[in-house]
Amino acid sequence: MKRSVAIDMDGVLADVESHFFEWYKRDYGVSLTLQDIIGKTEDDAFPEKMVIRKFATTPGFFTTVPVMPGAIEAVKKLMEDFEVYVVSAAMEFPQSLSEKRIWLTEHFPFISWRNIIFCGDKSIISTDFMIDDHIKNLDYFKGKTILFNAFHNVSYHHHTRANNWDEVLALMQESLL
Amino acid sequence: MKRSVAIDMDGVLADVESHFFEWYKRDYGVSLTLQDIIGKTEDDAFPEKMVIRKFATTPGFFTTVPVMPGAIEAVKKLMEDFEVYVVSAAMEFPQSLSEKRIWLTEHFPFISWRNIIFCGDKSIISTDFMIDDHIKNLDYFKGKTILFNAFHNVSYHHHTRANNWDEVLALMQESLL
Repeated sequence: MKRSVAIDMDGVLADVESHFFEWYKRDYGVSLTLQDIIGKTEDDAFPEKMVIRKFATTPGFFTTVPVMPGAIEAVKKLMEDFEVYVVSAAMEFPQSLSEKRIWLTEHFPFISWRNIIFCGDKSIISTDFMIDDHIKNLDYFKGKTILFNAFHNVSYHHHTRANNWDEVLALMQESLL
Repeated sequence: MKRSVAIDMDGVLADVESHFFEWYKRDYGVSLTLQDIIGKTEDDAFPEKMVIRKFATTPGFFTTVPVMPGAIEAVKKLMEDFEVYVVSAAMEFPQSLSEKRIWLTEHFPFISWRNIIFCGDKSIISTDFMIDDHIKNLDYFKGKTILFNAFHNVSYHHHTRANNWDEVLALMQESLL
C-alpha cells in the first residue's frame, strides 16, 4: 500500500506570494519584493494591515493565483509512489471553497475529488507525510513533515525545509530508500 | 483533553431522506415513504435511476435540506464533553461546498469554521469517534464508530447502530463512564 502525503495549497501548490505582490501593485501602486517581507508574519507583511485578509476574501483571488513553479510535474511524479491528498485550510474564507475546487480542476485535473480535503485546522488529518508552509499545521502532525519555504517561516528550524518542489521530490525519494 | 468526534452531515445532521421525498413529490408527483425505499441502495431508492445524484447536483438542494430532528440540541450537548468536528464528503459535488457551508452557518452557528472538514473520501480523518450513515466511511475508520440509521444501511450489523440523536447521545455518554 502506498504511503500517504497531505499537500497544502496556498504557498505550496499555489504561489500566493507572487499573487499578493501582483494585487498589491495593482491596488496600491507599490512594487514589493521578497526582501521587503521576508521574516515578517502574514499580518505584518504589507504596510497596510489586513491586506492579505482583504485579498483572500475578494472573489476571484483564489481562481487566479499562479501555480507554484514545478508543482504540477512534481505532484504527478509523487503520485507514482505515494497516495497524494490535497489538504487546504479553506474553511475560514467561505468563497474560497468553490474557487479552490475550480482552480484544482483547472491545474491539477489528475487529482481525484476523493483526494481533496478542505478544512479549518488540520489537527485531525492523518497521513504519513505532510508538506506545508505553516508551522501551526506541522507542529501537531504525527507523521513526517516537510516545511515548504515561505517568507513567514524562515526563522523556524524544527522541520525539514524544502526551498522548492525539486527539493520536496528529493526528500520524498529519499524516504523510499 | 477532550476526545474528538467526527460527525457526518447528509443523513446525520441533515435530513436528506425527507428532502429527497419532498423534491421527488414536487418533481415527479409521487409520494414515497420510508417503506418504499428501506433496504435499497441510494442508486436504487427511486424508480428513476440517478434521482439522488440529480437532486444533489441541483443548486439549492443543500441549502434547503431540513435539520435532522434533535441534531442541534444533541450537538450542543456533545460539545460539552467532546471536540466536535463536522466531516462531510462534499467534494464530489462542487456546488455543495458553499451550500453546505451556508447551511452550517445557518443551523449550527456555534460550530467554529476550524472544526469543519469537507472531503472526498474520509480515509485520512483521524478522530476518536465517527458518527456516519455510510458503511464505507466507518469500515476503514480506526476509532469507535456509530452507524446512524438510514434506509440504505438497515442490513448492516457490524457497527453500533443509533436510530436517532437521543440514542447517539446515550452511546456517547456511556463512553464517558
